[in-house]
Amino acid sequence: MTLLHEDHLFPADPEIRGIARRLYRTIRKLPILSPHGHTEAAWFATDQPFPNPATLLIVPDHYIFRMLYSQGITLEELGIGKESLTQSEARAIWAIFAANYYLFRGTPTRIWLDFAFQELFGLKQTLTAKNAEKYYDAIAAKLAEPGFRPRALYKRFNIEVLSTTNSALDPLTDHQAIRNSGWKARILPTFRPDAVVDPDFDDFRKNVAQLGEMHGEDTGHWTGYLRALSKARQRFKQLGCTATDHGHPTANTADLDAAAAAKLYSEVLGGGAGADRRELFRAQMLTEMAAMSLEDGLVMQIHPGAWRNHNEQLFKKFGRNIGADIPTRTDYVRGLHPLLQKYGNERSLTIVLFMLDESTQGRELAPLAGHYPCLRLGPPWWFFDSPEGMMRFREYTTETAGFYNTAGFNDDTRAFLSIPARHDVARRVDCAFLARLVAEHRLGEDEAAEVAHALAYGLARQTYRL
Amino acid sequence: MTLLHEDHLFPADPEIRGIARRLYRTIRKLPILSPHGHTEAAWFATDQPFPNPATLLIVPDHYIFRMLYSQGITLEELGIGKESLTQSEARAIWAIFAANYYLFRGTPTRIWLDFAFQELFGLKQTLTAKNAEKYYDAIAAKLAEPGFRPRALYKRFNIEVLSTTNSALDPLTDHQAIRNSGWKARILPTFRPDAVVDPDFDDFRKNVAQLGEMHGEDTGHWTGYLRALSKARQRFKQLGCTATDHGHPTANTADLDAAAAAKLYSEVLGGGAGADRRELFRAQMLTEMAAMSLEDGLVMQIHPGAWRNHNEQLFKKFGRNIGADIPTRTDYVRGLHPLLQKYGNERSLTIVLFMLDESTQGRELAPLAGHYPCLRLGPPWWFFDSPEGMMRFREYTTETAGFYNTAGFNDDTRAFLSIPARHDVARRVDCAFLARLVAEHRLGEDEAAEVAHALAYGLARQTYRL
Amino acid sequence: MTLLHEDHLFPADPEIRGIARRLYRTIRKLPILSPHGHTEAAWFATDQPFPNPATLLIVPDHYIFRMLYSQGITLEELGIGKESLTQSEARAIWAIFAANYYLFRGTPTRIWLDFAFQELFGLKQTLTAKNAEKYYDAIAAKLAEPGFRPRALYKRFNIEVLSTTNSALDPLTDHQAIRNSGWKARILPTFRPDAVVDPDFDDFRKNVAQLGEMHGEDTGHWTGYLRALSKARQRFKQLGCTATDHGHPTANTADLDAAAAAKLYSEVLGGGAGADRRELFRAQMLTEMAAMSLEDGLVMQIHPGAWRNHNEQLFKKFGRNIGADIPTRTDYVRGLHPLLQKYGNERSLTIVLFMLDESTQGRELAPLAGHYPCLRLGPPWWFFDSPEGMMRFREYTTETAGFYNTAGFNDDTRAFLSIPARHDVARRVDCAFLARLVAEHRLGEDEAAEVAHALAYGLARQTYRL
Repeated sequence: MTLLHEDHLFPADPEIRGIARRLYRTIRKLPILSPHGHTEAAWFATDQPFPNPATLLIVPDHYIFRMLYSQGITLEELGIGKESLTQSEARAIWAIFAANYYLFRGTPTRIWLDFAFQELFGLKQTLTAKNAEKYYDAIAAKLAEPGFRPRALYKRFNIEVLSTTNSALDPLTDHQAIRNSGWKARILPTFRPDAVVDPDFDDFRKNVAQLGEMHGEDTGHWTGYLRALSKARQRFKQLGCTATDHGHPTANTADLDAAAAAKLYSEVLGGGAGADRRELFRAQMLTEMAAMSLEDGLVMQIHPGAWRNHNEQLFKKFGRNIGADIPTRTDYVRGLHPLLQKYGNERSLTIVLFMLDESTQGRELAPLAGHYPCLRLGPPWWFFDSPEGMMRFREYTTETAGFYNTAGFNDDTRAFLSIPARHDVARRVDCAFLARLVAEHRLGEDEAAEVAHALAYGLARQTYRL
Repeated sequence: MTLLHEDHLFPADPEIRGIARRLYRTIRKLPILSPHGHTEAAWFATDQPFPNPATLLIVPDHYIFRMLYSQGITLEELGIGKESLTQSEARAIWAIFAANYYLFRGTPTRIWLDFAFQELFGLKQTLTAKNAEKYYDAIAAKLAEPGFRPRALYKRFNIEVLSTTNSALDPLTDHQAIRNSGWKARILPTFRPDAVVDPDFDDFRKNVAQLGEMHGEDTGHWTGYLRALSKARQRFKQLGCTATDHGHPTANTADLDAAAAAKLYSEVLGGGAGADRRELFRAQMLTEMAAMSLEDGLVMQIHPGAWRNHNEQLFKKFGRNIGADIPTRTDYVRGLHPLLQKYGNERSLTIVLFMLDESTQGRELAPLAGHYPCLRLGPPWWFFDSPEGMMRFREYTTETAGFYNTAGFNDDTRAFLSIPARHDVARRVDCAFLARLVAEHRLGEDEAAEVAHALAYGLARQTYRL
Repeated sequence: MTLLHEDHLFPADPEIRGIARRLYRTIRKLPILSPHGHTEAAWFATDQPFPNPATLLIVPDHYIFRMLYSQGITLEELGIGKESLTQSEARAIWAIFAANYYLFRGTPTRIWLDFAFQELFGLKQTLTAKNAEKYYDAIAAKLAEPGFRPRALYKRFNIEVLSTTNSALDPLTDHQAIRNSGWKARILPTFRPDAVVDPDFDDFRKNVAQLGEMHGEDTGHWTGYLRALSKARQRFKQLGCTATDHGHPTANTADLDAAAAAKLYSEVLGGGAGADRRELFRAQMLTEMAAMSLEDGLVMQIHPGAWRNHNEQLFKKFGRNIGADIPTRTDYVRGLHPLLQKYGNERSLTIVLFMLDESTQGRELAPLAGHYPCLRLGPPWWFFDSPEGMMRFREYTTETAGFYNTAGFNDDTRAFLSIPARHDVARRVDCAFLARLVAEHRLGEDEAAEVAHALAYGLARQTYRL
């Protein structure tokens, strides 16, 4: 008995399944390129063992606790907001989780966890209230072994590149420490400037001042601010960074002239800008970032459309990232127009677009990426990084944008142990999609194998300039 | 030869079909819980035989006559708007229907009707112009039998609970009569307050005055109005009501303070409120109803997004519910925000959300229901209460919200004879979906059987507090 | 070895595939009705041989060059904007195309081209950089044969009706020449009035003046303008035209009274109308066109939702139709309301609605077409005239609108050689969809065969009054 069958996620039809298996066999063991994610460089810098199973698997994973919360379990019961857990607290949390594991039926969380339970911890029976203790003990025992430290897992997972996501203000000391240690691995920072380009971010003005100090620029005015940002990007590049990441509420961009932009910046910095002006500033900053990418070659990632912290009561108690970010309708065609008018035809620029609004896939994203040379489509993200979401992504984008205007897979996770599972799911689903095309005589199997390789490895490498 | 094959709606793949059959066998005969619908309590109070086939099956069913109308048949030809039909009129209508039955190919109406034709009336050949008379006679003969009276059918259909939908002003005499009759059945009213909370409803002011009279409250001011509503809910509860139903044009909610709400009520009642203010009033009333649900435990159902009576010419001639209600884009994330800020974290509140805009399923509804403890997703409704619609509902919501944040099935019908067919379709489609997960090794068959039971029975019972 | 398998596009499941094959066999050889497209009447008037392969297949096909452009190939390299190509230029373009043919994997362009390569030119191996020359020579040799002239191909393709699309100002001399030639074929013009009803069209005022001159009317005022339009439609009708075509940015319609419309026309003509007023004018003109259709019986086609020339840099250099038109969100329910209030119940009016926003299919289009007698749904268009797009169209519209409120297939192409391929794809996909319904016991195979015939032939004939 196993948790995951070897044909897991492959269509039942014997012909399609046979083709999917053959395609998958050719890419299954390719190294993992993880050019976008939220693991911590500190783990690899210090290489300390992970603490108990609850702290490792449950507390940091909003996919898990949002589902439990939706069914009436409080965040307090799950240890959210605590700095650390005692053994008995960790066991109590694990027990709640185990008793409610059935809630995850049909979700990707179930797949990621079962994959880790089986492949890493050798567990073979579905987690339930009954075997919760046995599970806890088995995982805890493994976590104490040297082979389960971060660096050992990095190697075991066959990772070739792992990018973290870092505030523009991050001193990057952990990245530096990894480099200094002589460890042979590519852990790369990604430049995420929200804290210094989004006027609604906590402590925006203080952040901008700090940015100036870090780079010897006067961020009290527009040109000094731009210079400081440019230097900050250089600082990231020196540690291997190849990309920036922008998580705006909308896909709006703007193209103000320098004087208007400087005026807007003064307003925003002075605190006198209304909601529309603050949105315009974010919009303008995307275009400014594109200009800098043209200069320094960093790949630009745009992740629009989340209403962050929709549940204000919880936000006040527990802060960000507690599972209450909700997707909203996004308009890429109008939003990106100013940026694309300015830089859309630049062939040395790469912009990766992510989506949380599936209705844009066929209508907006595939047509845009199937035309503008600078655009690539990021993989299905967040609520859609799942078998059905990934399959729909291919079904809705391929006919217009083809495969080669997509950016390969991102795991985008802070759950380190889920990385192999997430890439495995993506590879299986892509093989399943390709196998259907082959079985329906829409693509030769030899061509499908080339595409499968590109989707699993080549496109990520090319898109992110790795 | 039969109208419906025993494998009806199961996927063709032999492996998936085999699993679907096995799952279906375990739930096929579960009692029907029908917690939301539009049958008439009067049928069960009086237990009179249904009149002729046309009056029973065609005249009240806008699914049927909208399709015929779309193809050039007038509503007059179909007897819409007539109080009753002579035998020859009924036969003439039936003949038109039969000659055009091919128009329903591929629609759920065809399934519901074929199911009733076969299971209730023993008919075995597809309805056509040729056999129209034979059909009519066969159905008419059965309707005269005692076994086809409403109470007998209720029993034959294996219904455990049947909820009707009733205006807040409904005297509920039929429900009372059923209770008084000693008949062992659960026919429950549902509290639908549109007539007294929607300023655009016909005779709104008169309705509000009547509400006050019924409950000995002065609805001329805000607090009296709220008290009257609360008492009206109590009156429904005494007859077994467990839920309210709210069919607003949008999902907008509001959270005004008491003074602002009182002022708005005065404006609305005085007739001086513009369209925005009337919409704000409806929005505020959803939040007020949620507050009352917290008090009295009634489950709240929100059905937003229909543009009622889009065809104004027909509305003037024939009134409401003649097939010209059209879905519109709906924004749940912004619309529900005020209500959710106030009550979203209440674990003793249950709000069931329905949708007419499928693009919200993955983007908005599943993320909201997968987080807020008060939310449950209603089944695919109206234009989507169909095999493809039900399948997409599972495909788009399960990965984020799971199965256990959904509310089980509702038939939502005024076509009493279609109730067993509708539940059968839902059960089959859910089994087909689950069977694919099992065949793709995403769920064990034992777990799938538990889920199938919950979807067919347990979740409706739990959600609606039956 | 072949480029396209005989089971091409049929589902892999053996049962479904078997049914699909049988259904397809009954309709495969039906004549082609092409009631909407962009071929040139001049080809058939002059019957000159097509020039080289690049000029025939690549330069005019924005599906091809937008994909190449998106991957960094310039339009200049592809000969876009050149009046004609030398042999060596044509060969160089062909070489680029061949080397990048892999980009089209998974796209409909690949299918259309492989179909033509195989069926017309007898080629059997996938186009690559290696066999590019061989391909070029083979195609060029065929194009020199008499059997590859336009009229011969029309016959070979088994076309029964072929409609072109023509500006309201088109002198239609080529259509007249075809008639005069005595050639037995039905090449029909379609009335496309954008140039004279869209104030944002290049040279709008000049166009309107020219319209007046052509028809002896004073288009300087509203009633003269309407009379000129009406006469222009008559002129088209005399050459066999049965339909008009309207490609607006939105689905907005309006119903102004005559005085308000006349005033708006003056404003628009005077150049003083702002963006909102110009949009209102387009909206009003759709309703005026519907009024004229009621008079003269021309079928009205509405194609809303494209943001034309989104890439302004390219537009300035290369003009229209270079692959930079992007779909946008469309609101049919609100937009069409004024027109439908006025004419929606007219049974002698036919309006065919097309979409570029798939989220409207289930939510808006199927409910509207399943009610209003004047409405028919056009086939999936442009970015969705593809196997997945066509399949989703049936999945999203059939349950509400049925099959008989759809308009049959349009190829909508300027790529003459792709016409048989496009109709073949549509027929195969419809048979695949129907075969699934049959296999799932939702439709009898005999009924499915009737539907297949209607979708391939009968509905286009009926809808377009051919």
